Amino acid sequence: MVKQERAVRTRKSLIDAAAAVFAEEGYVPSSLATISKRAGVSNGALHFHFENKKALAHAVEEAATDVIHELVRLSGHAGASALQALVDATHGLVGCLLHDIVVRAGFDLSFERPLGTEAGLVRTWHGWVEETLRRAESEGHLAPGVSPDDAAAAIVAATVGFDVLAGDDPQWLAERRIIGFWELLLPGIATADVLVSARPPKRVRDKRTGLIGP
Amino acid sequence: MVKQERAVRTRKSLIDAAAAVFAEEGYVPSSLATISKRAGVSNGALHFHFENKKALAHAVEEAATDVIHELVRLSGHAGASALQALVDATHGLVGCLLHDIVVRAGFDLSFERPLGTEAGLVRTWHGWVEETLRRAESEGHLAPGVSPDDAAAAIVAATVGFDVLAGDDPQWLAERRIIGFWELLLPGIATADVLVSARPPKRVRDKRTGLIGP
Repeated sequence: MVKQERAVRTRKSLIDAAAAVFAEEGYVPSSLATISKRAGVSNGALHFHFENKKALAHAVEEAATDVIHELVRLSGHAGASALQALVDATHGLVGCLLHDIVVRAGFDLSFERPLGTEAGLVRTWHGWVEETLRRAESEGHLAPGVSPDDAAAAIVAATVGFDVLAGDDPQWLAERRIIGFWELLLPGIATADVLVSARPPKRVRDKRTGLIGP
Repeated sequence: MVKQERAVRTRKSLIDAAAAVFAEEGYVPSSLATISKRAGVSNGALHFHFENKKALAHAVEEAATDVIHELVRLSGHAGASALQALVDATHGLVGCLLHDIVVRAGFDLSFERPLGTEAGLVRTWHGWVEETLRRAESEGHLAPGVSPDDAAAAIVAATVGFDVLAGDDPQWLAERRIIGFWELLLPGIATADVLVSARPPKRVRDKRTGLIGP
């Protein structure tokens, strides 16, 4: 293995280890010693890649944000309405929160106040949800009087709540919870004539990214 | 001031100080020294009342739970439907989360994992929301096919999400957010013939408890 390749691997294993330790212990009590031990690298190697815990947290958030960007890019099949893309992306996000420790940790870091990263990943998610609802509005699919801002706030608050509550009981991120949520919300959001399924899309995994997409 | 009265006051000031410090710094990094200093009492006095930080956290949760019990008791005016009581209680909870530091800290402690209190206050809230939706169902006010469990999960997740996001920006707990949330959700939950207002009830303060009620 050439030197550069090894460095990339070590960096990735440190990010994965940091995500796991942050998710298990919370950001504040986590120690760099626990993280380097978990990654199977020396303290020196950790400091070669990351100046401090904050730098590691930013790297976790960045890696998680990349996944979310890919997830929203893949959401909705060709010709799908914006509302359907939104439902699909919510299912995708929740799947990642359940199965991808980096996304989980990155999402949680968004509201760990001492970090002060201005709610990074949640802000990205919120921005995309709002933009997608505006697209739904321009497609004529939002029920009269529905404000894209209010709807985005409700959807983002619910996803954050499901994630936080899942810390105690993973059932909060179960697929049927998200289906139930959309079955309740869609009648208030969508016009009567638009067909949107509350269920997740058929699971086709993108070979390159490993993400579940259209 | 008699001795017992002074003890009750000291205990209360310790609970208030602990709530403020937990809310500002998070439970894990908070120190007993900071709390006793904030309460203006000695470390010895703190230990006379509370064995450790965990005991203080439980006392905060208990005090917050008392407020929530009172809040749901007062929600909905005489003859109000269960659904209206639910909307009113959500507005009441959010008002408490904004203005009552003990409720805010108690609610947040519910999902501070290391505490292991089995999601105390949020569980109380969840139980009441579910029970109230069952009552709405028996009143014939739930739209066909609506599951009280799914609806309760969506409402609890959203309230937790609003609370968590407000750590970064208090606007997440603004009244209009909650009105917007109910305006979206009610068409999916309620039968077409039941009248439920998404707006908070007229503000009448209960003289004994200081809570806003019917």
